[in-house]
Amino acid sequence: MAVGLGALPRLHPVPGVRLGTAQAGFKAPGRRDLVVMALDEGSRCAAVFTSNAFCAAPVTVARDHLRVGQPRFLVINAGNANAGTGPQGIEAALRCCELAAEQGGCDRARVLPFSTGVIGEPLPLGPFRDGLPAALADLREDGWADAAAGIMTTDTLPKGASLQVPVGERTVTVTGIAKGSGMIRPDMATMLAFVATDCEVAPAALRRCLERAVAASFNRITVDGDMSTNDACVLAATGRGGPAVTADEGPDFEALCGAVTEVCRTLAQAIVRDGEGATKFITVDVHGGRTPEECRGVAYTVAHSPLVKTAFFAGDPNWGRILAAIGRAPVVGLDVSCVEIDLNGVCIVRAGARADDYREERGAAAMAGPEIELCIRLGRGRYRDYIWTCDLSYEYVRINAEYRS
Amino acid sequence: MAVGLGALPRLHPVPGVRLGTAQAGFKAPGRRDLVVMALDEGSRCAAVFTSNAFCAAPVTVARDHLRVGQPRFLVINAGNANAGTGPQGIEAALRCCELAAEQGGCDRARVLPFSTGVIGEPLPLGPFRDGLPAALADLREDGWADAAAGIMTTDTLPKGASLQVPVGERTVTVTGIAKGSGMIRPDMATMLAFVATDCEVAPAALRRCLERAVAASFNRITVDGDMSTNDACVLAATGRGGPAVTADEGPDFEALCGAVTEVCRTLAQAIVRDGEGATKFITVDVHGGRTPEECRGVAYTVAHSPLVKTAFFAGDPNWGRILAAIGRAPVVGLDVSCVEIDLNGVCIVRAGARADDYREERGAAAMAGPEIELCIRLGRGRYRDYIWTCDLSYEYVRINAEYRS
Repeated sequence: MAVGLGALPRLHPVPGVRLGTAQAGFKAPGRRDLVVMALDEGSRCAAVFTSNAFCAAPVTVARDHLRVGQPRFLVINAGNANAGTGPQGIEAALRCCELAAEQGGCDRARVLPFSTGVIGEPLPLGPFRDGLPAALADLREDGWADAAAGIMTTDTLPKGASLQVPVGERTVTVTGIAKGSGMIRPDMATMLAFVATDCEVAPAALRRCLERAVAASFNRITVDGDMSTNDACVLAATGRGGPAVTADEGPDFEALCGAVTEVCRTLAQAIVRDGEGATKFITVDVHGGRTPEECRGVAYTVAHSPLVKTAFFAGDPNWGRILAAIGRAPVVGLDVSCVEIDLNGVCIVRAGARADDYREERGAAAMAGPEIELCIRLGRGRYRDYIWTCDLSYEYVRINAEYRS
Repeated sequence: MAVGLGALPRLHPVPGVRLGTAQAGFKAPGRRDLVVMALDEGSRCAAVFTSNAFCAAPVTVARDHLRVGQPRFLVINAGNANAGTGPQGIEAALRCCELAAEQGGCDRARVLPFSTGVIGEPLPLGPFRDGLPAALADLREDGWADAAAGIMTTDTLPKGASLQVPVGERTVTVTGIAKGSGMIRPDMATMLAFVATDCEVAPAALRRCLERAVAASFNRITVDGDMSTNDACVLAATGRGGPAVTADEGPDFEALCGAVTEVCRTLAQAIVRDGEGATKFITVDVHGGRTPEECRGVAYTVAHSPLVKTAFFAGDPNWGRILAAIGRAPVVGLDVSCVEIDLNGVCIVRAGARADDYREERGAAAMAGPEIELCIRLGRGRYRDYIWTCDLSYEYVRINAEYRS
């Protein structure tokens, strides 16, 4: 029941990146659940990870390996998160890297492991042993769509985005895939996202580009407020075919960064559109705060309110619940008589109370569609910020009550 | 589907307190929805209210009136919260006080108004005009049970508690009623609770007694993390029949305070047991923090996690979700390898990972009953704190998706 999310768009190959998948047996038989992303020698990666104290073993290992050198292989399994698994989990993640390194002919530290799925189950190594040869044999430049499907867990649709934009004298490709549907409230990066470009990008510029893109995309979404233990977003630059972006400012950097941001935004929105049980895609856009953080604080408080989320599910313009959520948001000295709320352009609240000309029918009509723009004006400053979220339905409860059974 | 909550216990009358109810027409016809609580001259009240910036009009008026003098009448209506109603809401709350004052023969400022129900609808005055004479005519010392029923909204059962304890040479009665089921995450006091004693209590002692009782009861519960605009808890001391408690310390104060706290705890737990859609009553008990606040921060993060709540609903000991919630709680520098989790006495997590001897069957068995004790040890300090919460079921979504329709 994904909201406004269709089939995958065309995902342009990125010279220097090849992807392969295999049915390794982490999930149900017949399901591609192992993905390998191979980066040509000379590629460079930047990555951001979950800030959850219980980060998963692969996150710890990937962070360590990124400090040592540039990755040649990203190995991703779906069906088991290798999180909450203690020292054995670290060992399993390292062993997975070793297996890929042996077959791929590189150092173990040049493999990054990623896992997604159930937390707390030991990560089996058999599927890596069985599946890696097939995944490596399957490596190809047009493997993005299969990889997008291979990393899915409770996702109902694969998620990908791709752009070609001019940078300097040349055309650059930026292509990315992501997975995620529940336990979505990133603070660093969400679930798993892999984005690549054929530009050659200097380390500082690559890092800054990723941080800017993530701040404007994955760090603006929430499905259920639950931050994952496995969140990771990787940006790879292969330098094959694209121009060199050497500075972390200037027109070339901005052009590349704009494209990466756009791809990340599409992927982040796709995660919310495919949020567990989602029937509405909601933009919470908060204006008039004293700082952007204040605006985001209000937006997240509204977006996490179970009462607001169930009202959206019901298509009920229950603005009282929105007011109540704003009233408990982290804003010091809020003057409620300045607060205004519009819902898909319909003026609902003025001066902290129901607008004089508001009619319930107009609010209900504005709520009827699947795309909702909730605009909140705090009337106390000149800053604005926004996030994307979805509603809370029976289906969310069903999915998460039945997840392991 | 309230969890472990039966019929009202015997509610001992409190000399000096009379209660009356009426079918005023705020809610469906035939439903008692207007309650008047009359306090004899010489009674003294303390009260705490919501810290929501969008506090309801009656909260503003009740706060103002408490500054002026001691209340004679508390007027409570169910079905309309008079919240988000702007200046007209204040006027309506004052008018309600006026109507009661005229008929009760006192100053308007000696009436406290309380409202609960739908937010954002104008509070009609007709039902007060029609219902107040009947409610005042109905005033009686044994009116507690009817009053407990009269203040209900989405509650499925009335909530009351009553104790008689020795204070000094005499026996003191403490009786209270409360309502609340959704939008429950008090920061001051929850929804509506009215507690009375026949002690004579000095102002400072009364205030301190209420604050201590609320800290140990209503400020430890959460159903859905949504803080109400109307929360209020009033403690009245009539001085009729009970001894005088003049100091805010010493054995008499402690005896009274213990009884008030116990009544408030029973009422607070009753609210969670009757939480919207609740099928489990869960104590989240956090040990080994560096401060009590740290322990509460972990407890609330776990209690608000939709993934943890749906797992409890499913009876699924999905400890990975509990770990993930602990990992994003506001604890600086948490060493996850020290974390331990027990569930109804079954050891589940040791050293931040699944305990060696844990078996899924034992976890499932521990989750099967309606009462869950979730014990989390952080292993970094000597403080402990705990809260009470419930699970998240289909029924919660249904109730809140259909509330206004």
